[in-house]
Amino acid sequence: MKKRLIISLLSLCPAAFISAQTPVYLDDSQPIESRVQDALSRMTLEEKVKLCYAQSKFSSHGVPRLGIPEIWMSDGPHGVRAEINWNDWGYAKWTNDSITAFPALTCLAATWNPEMSAKYGKAIGEEARYREKDVLLGPGVNIYRTPLNGRNFEYMGEDPYLAGALSVPYIQEVQKNGVAVSVKHYALNNQEKWRGHIDVQLSDRALHEIYLPAFKAAVQQGGAWTVMGAYNKIRGQHACHNELILQKILKNDWKFDGVVVTDWGGAHDTREAALNGLDIEMGTYTNGLTTESAFTYDAYYLANPYLKMLKDGEVPLSTIDDKASRILRLIFRTAMNREKPYGALTNDAHYAAAREIGNEGIVLLKNDPIRKKAAPLLPIDATKYNRILVVGDNAVRLLNQGGGSSELKVKDMVSPLDGMREAYGDKVSYTKGYAAGRPFYGRAEAIRKAVIDSLRTEAVKMAKEADLVILFGGLNKNHGQDCEASDRLEYGLPFGQDELIEGILGVNKNMVLVLLSGNAVEMPWVGQVPAILQGWYLGSMGGRSLADVLSGEVNPSGKLPFSFPAKLTDCGAHAFDALSYPGDSIKQVYKEDVLVGYRWHDTKKIPALFPFGYGLSYTTFAYGKPSISAQTMRADGTVSVSVAVRNTGNRAGKEVVQLYVSDVKCSVLRPAKELKHFQKISLAPGEEQTVSFTLTPEDLKFYDDKAATWVAEPGDFEVLIGASSADIKGKVGFELIDKVISAKE
Amino acid sequence: MKKRLIISLLSLCPAAFISAQTPVYLDDSQPIESRVQDALSRMTLEEKVKLCYAQSKFSSHGVPRLGIPEIWMSDGPHGVRAEINWNDWGYAKWTNDSITAFPALTCLAATWNPEMSAKYGKAIGEEARYREKDVLLGPGVNIYRTPLNGRNFEYMGEDPYLAGALSVPYIQEVQKNGVAVSVKHYALNNQEKWRGHIDVQLSDRALHEIYLPAFKAAVQQGGAWTVMGAYNKIRGQHACHNELILQKILKNDWKFDGVVVTDWGGAHDTREAALNGLDIEMGTYTNGLTTESAFTYDAYYLANPYLKMLKDGEVPLSTIDDKASRILRLIFRTAMNREKPYGALTNDAHYAAAREIGNEGIVLLKNDPIRKKAAPLLPIDATKYNRILVVGDNAVRLLNQGGGSSELKVKDMVSPLDGMREAYGDKVSYTKGYAAGRPFYGRAEAIRKAVIDSLRTEAVKMAKEADLVILFGGLNKNHGQDCEASDRLEYGLPFGQDELIEGILGVNKNMVLVLLSGNAVEMPWVGQVPAILQGWYLGSMGGRSLADVLSGEVNPSGKLPFSFPAKLTDCGAHAFDALSYPGDSIKQVYKEDVLVGYRWHDTKKIPALFPFGYGLSYTTFAYGKPSISAQTMRADGTVSVSVAVRNTGNRAGKEVVQLYVSDVKCSVLRPAKELKHFQKISLAPGEEQTVSFTLTPEDLKFYDDKAATWVAEPGDFEVLIGASSADIKGKVGFELIDKVISAKE
Repeated sequence: MKKRLIISLLSLCPAAFISAQTPVYLDDSQPIESRVQDALSRMTLEEKVKLCYAQSKFSSHGVPRLGIPEIWMSDGPHGVRAEINWNDWGYAKWTNDSITAFPALTCLAATWNPEMSAKYGKAIGEEARYREKDVLLGPGVNIYRTPLNGRNFEYMGEDPYLAGALSVPYIQEVQKNGVAVSVKHYALNNQEKWRGHIDVQLSDRALHEIYLPAFKAAVQQGGAWTVMGAYNKIRGQHACHNELILQKILKNDWKFDGVVVTDWGGAHDTREAALNGLDIEMGTYTNGLTTESAFTYDAYYLANPYLKMLKDGEVPLSTIDDKASRILRLIFRTAMNREKPYGALTNDAHYAAAREIGNEGIVLLKNDPIRKKAAPLLPIDATKYNRILVVGDNAVRLLNQGGGSSELKVKDMVSPLDGMREAYGDKVSYTKGYAAGRPFYGRAEAIRKAVIDSLRTEAVKMAKEADLVILFGGLNKNHGQDCEASDRLEYGLPFGQDELIEGILGVNKNMVLVLLSGNAVEMPWVGQVPAILQGWYLGSMGGRSLADVLSGEVNPSGKLPFSFPAKLTDCGAHAFDALSYPGDSIKQVYKEDVLVGYRWHDTKKIPALFPFGYGLSYTTFAYGKPSISAQTMRADGTVSVSVAVRNTGNRAGKEVVQLYVSDVKCSVLRPAKELKHFQKISLAPGEEQTVSFTLTPEDLKFYDDKAATWVAEPGDFEVLIGASSADIKGKVGFELIDKVISAKE
Repeated sequence: MKKRLIISLLSLCPAAFISAQTPVYLDDSQPIESRVQDALSRMTLEEKVKLCYAQSKFSSHGVPRLGIPEIWMSDGPHGVRAEINWNDWGYAKWTNDSITAFPALTCLAATWNPEMSAKYGKAIGEEARYREKDVLLGPGVNIYRTPLNGRNFEYMGEDPYLAGALSVPYIQEVQKNGVAVSVKHYALNNQEKWRGHIDVQLSDRALHEIYLPAFKAAVQQGGAWTVMGAYNKIRGQHACHNELILQKILKNDWKFDGVVVTDWGGAHDTREAALNGLDIEMGTYTNGLTTESAFTYDAYYLANPYLKMLKDGEVPLSTIDDKASRILRLIFRTAMNREKPYGALTNDAHYAAAREIGNEGIVLLKNDPIRKKAAPLLPIDATKYNRILVVGDNAVRLLNQGGGSSELKVKDMVSPLDGMREAYGDKVSYTKGYAAGRPFYGRAEAIRKAVIDSLRTEAVKMAKEADLVILFGGLNKNHGQDCEASDRLEYGLPFGQDELIEGILGVNKNMVLVLLSGNAVEMPWVGQVPAILQGWYLGSMGGRSLADVLSGEVNPSGKLPFSFPAKLTDCGAHAFDALSYPGDSIKQVYKEDVLVGYRWHDTKKIPALFPFGYGLSYTTFAYGKPSISAQTMRADGTVSVSVAVRNTGNRAGKEVVQLYVSDVKCSVLRPAKELKHFQKISLAPGEEQTVSFTLTPEDLKFYDDKAATWVAEPGDFEVLIGASSADIKGKVGFELIDKVISAKE
């Protein structure tokens, strides 16, 4: 039959015949920008606006008529979150969404190792890809301003350079999977208290020198495809539609060509959202609709109200073409990227990455001998102990639950207690020691205290009989601890842990304290505990990473990405009145200005209990005298600084060689020193390696508020080589001959 | 810094460097079979078994560790079903799953036009692709054996050749989207009553000549990638793990290289499933687990019980390698097919396809003038009528709701009443005329009857005042009508429609009856109704397609894909005792054997009310005398038959020229004639076209039970050219010289 024949012939046609009719936007051989413009030219105004807002809790509209797919997002940044219901925050109870939990980003920062960041990004990116996500909501690079911020565990510490350097490989590796990152929370979401409305006031210098550089690195070096706005206000305007930080700095100055997504429910005004650079509005119950029955996504600020404003000529059509172009570009980079790999979930490589990042991020804070001339307590010499008592709620608690949006549903989880049992078998016994609960009032509080007392009494009794006590304490992911949407209630350890520690020390000095937290804590007992590890939140392989380090399988090499002040008022954010922290509920003023973290401790000469960049090893390192290639630098010149580092102990180990710059004299107050470079090296016993860094005028600049650009003033500079911010091993000086001013951004 | 540099260099590496390390199964340049074998070689036994069963209502496991994606399925075959909850049958209430509803497959069959099948497949395939489905569960090609089968509307009529010919382009076009079809329900699921356990007994001839050819065409010509098993038993063994039809016929004889999926819950035995060719078990609460709390997919027949049998050596490991290979092949063809297009949802082309398929599938059953010498009632001459009364529940009912798994959530829907209002504006008034509800008992039934009486009284009163009455009646998708899981309760029209029709005829002869159904119905009033259309279920554009035909915008060209018996016992399946239909609840015997549909009517000389292949036009066609190219045929020869057809009316129209073959003398009882070819042609007024068909010995064969193969016996054959199976316009004869026997399959 003729017609059947014609059909058969058509089905044999070569692809070339088909592609002659393929529209440009569907033609993979065309440049993305051509495809974006072609798609845009085919879309109605209504279709363009639909791109700009959510259709469900974690997806936004595509263009069904044109075959342009939806965008599916997932919370990160430590693993790909379990599936959420279409239209409420409940979990969807799918069974294919159990994942690998990776160490918290504070731990990644503590590795000071970009290779670990790359491994992290590759593994989590593969998991997001296998889960068919287009956007992974992370990493978080907000600066650690106060140890009370409930969300610090999701960020990368107090230094803008370190946070930027360790976010870039993560971003690049995630995005190789055709999955966009969303760098968050842009910007100044440095506390959870009043996060939805607190208005942050700060100088341009603090903004540009401290709070923006990590975002800039993420965008310009990492090539991040999306950025997530913050909940707070900045200088009177919400961050999610803030003209200064979105339209001027991010999109105009930094040339960001990607998409700005709100934090969920972070939009508050249609005109500002239209004009000030917001691209996609996500969330729930925005626009005054607070119940599910009243709720429709079409009422979002960037939905029908925006469409109406466009139709009425109240905001220019160029705004929607810009937004739609950015969103289409994102779709071509992700959902419509044919070259992307297929990803993988919970495979051996991912568990190995989680374990290795944990191994490199755990920080040995203290490791003293019990008695003079004895060996330090760590690594644990298993032959010396018959009865090892593990204490602590955190030894068994699922620390991937709670905490807010970073909550994870893990496929496998090795708890610290599991890790200890794997390492020490029958020698291990366990008692809880403390219970995690918030204070109550009246009789309920009396009962809670009685429970705590009884747990402590039991632990102390068992500690007396033990050869070695390992206490896994710290914070957890409960509200008021390391948790989204609330700040911490106190700087000290919660749940009566101070009394527990002192009680145990009273009967057994052989005590190792492992703090699991994303924040610094006050340590009134620090002089008495011989061995302290900062163990972060380590995810699926946490117990194994901890066992690796405690047993000496792995030599610790983590360095603190933030300072541990001895007391809260030693922290710059807490050195002023309440307007500095937490603000007066309307606004807050960053009174410490650029002196955040070690910049405060160093400049104000207030030593931290454990300083930024600090971390011990089971071996020792000796630094040679640093040398410099020249005594002067010109505007287009460089100088090189070299230093020899030797492993002087009898174990292989890794050391982070840190380079700080100090501007000896400047027209503005500059911090005593600023981290500008670092390198982590691995040394066998006795091995020596020379580490070289090249400095350029970029490393010498500060942000000049008046000139509104970056400036390096001529004069003397010191280069300090240190094993931490407080342990400077040597310094060299040189003179900058020229004044160097950046082109205005 | 050295290490940063190394990372930067790596990220610049050309793709070739990466692909050197790419495993074969992830290498798109490798043949699929190599990729299948490579993937298989990397998998554990547990991972292979996991491929073989559901993880949720509509998805089955991938291999997360290796990045091999899950398989996502969706019910079809008339549109892509709305999203279902992960673990129960409720709808997930997503808002991105509203689709185009296409006409039911009975309507597609009634087009007798493979081009329409291709348009259908392309459009629904694009929608499935946009919805990110890997398998679309359709088309259905079970043979229409009895008009009581609740699921006939999802199938393609009573003739195996027609059903096969019209499924092939659908399948090919769907699969061009990287979406597999699942041809269902394999096999002999010809009634819904007792479908879960009824044991079908039939001859090998009936099996091979009537019930399997459409599946064979779907697999061998269509290249279907999956086949869905049926619920029923066949010769004592469930169809989903039936050795004869799966292992021997489908996989061995037909060389099917795809996947056999159960109907949901269609597996009942691990050993049979393992050995007899089932590949993926889907469903709910199988293995005796009948409550959600007790339920786990790991208890499925092909899950842990199968794994145990494999480990215990009770079934060979070759079975799992075969199943896993087939499933991997399916995944490479669909989820891991990088070349697939992106699809599209609810675009103009899809609506146009739905409308056009409807236009070509509507069958004009009757079109008489009211008075002698007057014009026929149709097409409606709008100038002649001022008051057009539309009657009937089906004029407004959402006929895509209900019906079982084919239920659809439509984005747009033009009802028949909408269509009439678009065509005739203010002239149209509407009354319901009847209410759709099942009979009750006692007082409830009396109330129901009173409602029906009142609706009828109102309709008759309004009909008296109208110039023209258009009644949209028929069946609907309620349980007991055209609906999965139940057969019809009666052959006649339900809901008192017979009385309604007669009541209206009593006051107004100007009546057009449009039957919306997927089945034939009894028509006691057929002589009195001047104009009758068979309008099927037409989907999103139904009202517009009907208006096109009623108004004369489109000249009807559909032909019945099944016979309308005058009374139920005129149907072969109902000409015997209850063991033939519906069976004795344990088994049933297909006593009519190969004499299904027109084969029964013709052979037994029991005229159908409206015969297979029948359908009127608004124009008329004259057939010339057919000619034949030769008087004899040899085993390797052919003969050509030609016939001229002329449009003798004054409208353009389409005609389906049908070719039947009759074996004049045979050693077995053959049907009086069998459809072997057809062609739909389009003719302008006065235009003549010569249609040619080529016959080969294949067209002459019957299935020889004793030889277990296909045989054409030498002797005389007649070739009949008809406008329907009962309207033979001419015939020619020839002699087959040789006996022709197929190689055993």
